[in-house]
Amino acid sequence: MNIEHDSFPVRRRGRPCKHAADLGETRELLLRTGVELLTEQGFSATGIDQILRRVGVPKGSFYNYFKSKEAFGAELIERYRVYFLRKLERHLGNAALSPLARLQAFIADAQHGMQKFDFSRGCLAGNLGQEMGTLPETFRAQLNAVFADWQDRLARNFEVARAVGEIAENADCLRLAAFFWIGWEGAVMRAKLEKSVAPLEIFADGFFASVARR
Amino acid sequence: MNIEHDSFPVRRRGRPCKHAADLGETRELLLRTGVELLTEQGFSATGIDQILRRVGVPKGSFYNYFKSKEAFGAELIERYRVYFLRKLERHLGNAALSPLARLQAFIADAQHGMQKFDFSRGCLAGNLGQEMGTLPETFRAQLNAVFADWQDRLARNFEVARAVGEIAENADCLRLAAFFWIGWEGAVMRAKLEKSVAPLEIFADGFFASVARR
Repeated sequence: MNIEHDSFPVRRRGRPCKHAADLGETRELLLRTGVELLTEQGFSATGIDQILRRVGVPKGSFYNYFKSKEAFGAELIERYRVYFLRKLERHLGNAALSPLARLQAFIADAQHGMQKFDFSRGCLAGNLGQEMGTLPETFRAQLNAVFADWQDRLARNFEVARAVGEIAENADCLRLAAFFWIGWEGAVMRAKLEKSVAPLEIFADGFFASVARR
Repeated sequence: MNIEHDSFPVRRRGRPCKHAADLGETRELLLRTGVELLTEQGFSATGIDQILRRVGVPKGSFYNYFKSKEAFGAELIERYRVYFLRKLERHLGNAALSPLARLQAFIADAQHGMQKFDFSRGCLAGNLGQEMGTLPETFRAQLNAVFADWQDRLARNFEVARAVGEIAENADCLRLAAFFWIGWEGAVMRAKLEKSVAPLEIFADGFFASVARR
């Protein structure tokens, strides 16, 4: 669940004009910058101020763009969910590969993405999940829904794998998908900590060993 | 890597006396409170001020107890390492159980521990690993050493499992141990997020399916 930032370009800006189009553009920049910083350092360490400063928006005008800090955070989670699901779909929807090879392609892409940013960027949902103890309680259901969404999508891929005989006939696809995402978040954290793809590889190898058809 | 807090009792205190014994006691309380808060909410969300406030130490006197915030953080990591290793040893050193059953006993203990605190407490090393992007760079090597330590200990347990035929003869014990801790951190995070032991169970089942002797 690392995020690649060529899809979130961040330009530094002066104080925004008050025209509706500019308001919209600044709002968009705040969201992109927010997603970027939250994949790097989570919510607590970032703070709204840092996001505003980076975009060049004066502190007092935050509420021109968002109803509340909580509403801003909720939009950041939703935006990441959509971004990440699109990335996942690109791999899992690749009919040229077998179902398990599609997951492997996603993993290779994630490894490449983390390397590209020198392992500074992880998963927004994982970062916020770790911090949940100090975040608005409404984020909990939203983050759980994000993981459930990814899990459902991967479970459908495993159902195809089962149908074509890549995994055992009696495999519990939803549980396998849950297992994958649970461990994957741990792997992304360790890859950031070690600044190495090794944790992603070790987890992927272990995972495929457990699903391999006996 | 959840932490059970009966072993870290926290009493609220008034302003400490300046006698050496009291200084030592207050220092100890700061360390215990620090470990407690860091297992709940990590470093960024906690801040030194919250720890001082909880123990009742005036902000200005922090440097009577620790050289720097970084030195304090380093002591917290070390203290957690020792605490956790002792817990792990208690299970992995239990000669009454088979090697894999020892790991299962550790997992059951961790589930119980997380439940007991309503899933508010996770793993200090996992929390800080997730936050590494904003922490002093010296913490990185220290946290990696903590994981390496746990990994070595678990690898030795798997070597015994291999010798007695619980896992395959050609199993790579160090890699299996790495796989376990990588995924386990993800499971602890999800258990906190979901307020449920299910992620710990799902990860453990998946893990044992991958090590089971073919």
